[in-house]
Amino acid sequence: MKRLLLIGIGAGHPDHLTLQAVKAIGATDVFFIVDKGEVKHDLVQLRLDMIAEHGRAPYRIAEARDPERDRDAAAYPAAVDDWRSRRALACEALVRDELADGETGAFLVWGDPGVYDSTLAVVEEILQRGNVRFDYEVVPGISSVAALTAAHRTSLTRVGRPVHLTTGRRLAEGGPTADDVMVMLDAHCSFAGLDGYAIHWGAYVGTADEILVSGPVAEVGERIRQVRAEARARKGWIMDSYLLRRL
Amino acid sequence: MKRLLLIGIGAGHPDHLTLQAVKAIGATDVFFIVDKGEVKHDLVQLRLDMIAEHGRAPYRIAEARDPERDRDAAAYPAAVDDWRSRRALACEALVRDELADGETGAFLVWGDPGVYDSTLAVVEEILQRGNVRFDYEVVPGISSVAALTAAHRTSLTRVGRPVHLTTGRRLAEGGPTADDVMVMLDAHCSFAGLDGYAIHWGAYVGTADEILVSGPVAEVGERIRQVRAEARARKGWIMDSYLLRRL
Repeated sequence: MKRLLLIGIGAGHPDHLTLQAVKAIGATDVFFIVDKGEVKHDLVQLRLDMIAEHGRAPYRIAEARDPERDRDAAAYPAAVDDWRSRRALACEALVRDELADGETGAFLVWGDPGVYDSTLAVVEEILQRGNVRFDYEVVPGISSVAALTAAHRTSLTRVGRPVHLTTGRRLAEGGPTADDVMVMLDAHCSFAGLDGYAIHWGAYVGTADEILVSGPVAEVGERIRQVRAEARARKGWIMDSYLLRRL
Repeated sequence: MKRLLLIGIGAGHPDHLTLQAVKAIGATDVFFIVDKGEVKHDLVQLRLDMIAEHGRAPYRIAEARDPERDRDAAAYPAAVDDWRSRRALACEALVRDELADGETGAFLVWGDPGVYDSTLAVVEEILQRGNVRFDYEVVPGISSVAALTAAHRTSLTRVGRPVHLTTGRRLAEGGPTADDVMVMLDAHCSFAGLDGYAIHWGAYVGTADEILVSGPVAEVGERIRQVRAEARARKGWIMDSYLLRRL
């Protein structure tokens, strides 16, 4: 039987790795890197650095090219489904051709594999297709949510109160659905105009490029928009998220 | 200046510690243990084990007794506020009397300090009272949310969709507010009767006592209630949480 590990590696800081993740990396025979091309090169490099530091030789690295995603599609979930299926095909080929029976393969997943990440769904899709069999485990990681709130020294949840995790697209469509809303995957600064809220915003949290801004949306919203655009242009990519809290 | 660290230690597995947390423990002069008495002794022991393994001598351990909390109070947030203020007084005394200027003190916090934990609020309350000054940092940890979803090999979030984090009390009062709801702090199995949902439930996740049950609420709800009651009686305490997903 082949064995697959989905290892959460944290939100960007090499020391976000848990001891469990370090041991999992040390137990891996083949690391699968699905490369998005040059744009997010930093993200691939962090993985390679972690493998170099914590991998136990002999190990192999098997790469595949991530399929392009149509980010402007009107039907977002459908576009993701299509992209995920093509990704599943690429990953299936990796697991089928590059991993032998009795070996352990691993995907190093940004943040926590359970928070807005597709690797779990990809793995389930491969298993359902039935062309390759394996067992798999998930190693939890520091999510961007935990990294953001720690960096801002604030709490995600308040005593006895709910918090909603959602996407920029949802926020733009329906506005905040609770007094505390954590927003991810927002390319369009959908917090603009939410003057009844404070915002704790962060980009590249935990890395040397970390940027943090917080305050009432009415006061810092425009600054975040500018800082975000500049950082994205400078680095070629951005990973950011924010917590909205009703004033 | 005194320095305080709030270190997330994960949901119960010693290897949930991040490398960042290991380094923070190694840099600590005084560990503050706020003891709830005998009931949750396992939880204190895990902290002591982590200190013994990762602490760098010489270090000291300073203990205080956690004030009793009125868990049956009708006004839950008010009861928590009162308990937190008494806890802040106890912690203030620890930081004032047991930590010297230039030293680093640490609280080892279960899970992630940002998710339904009071330590951040306690620290802020001490600073506002103004009797003792210090700087502080938060080290993010593996939350019970991440541990639960990893153990069940399921995702907290689905593509483009929100997830709500809430408490058992809120769920009992208002029912599920989304298709995906993560519930914590539920002593009363408030999922009972939610037959339109599947549940991924876990207790002591990541530890040797881990119990996982999942399936439609209509099929496994009663079993979870029994298993939970038995485990709680046997160990004297329970830490559990669950994800509800609309069928």
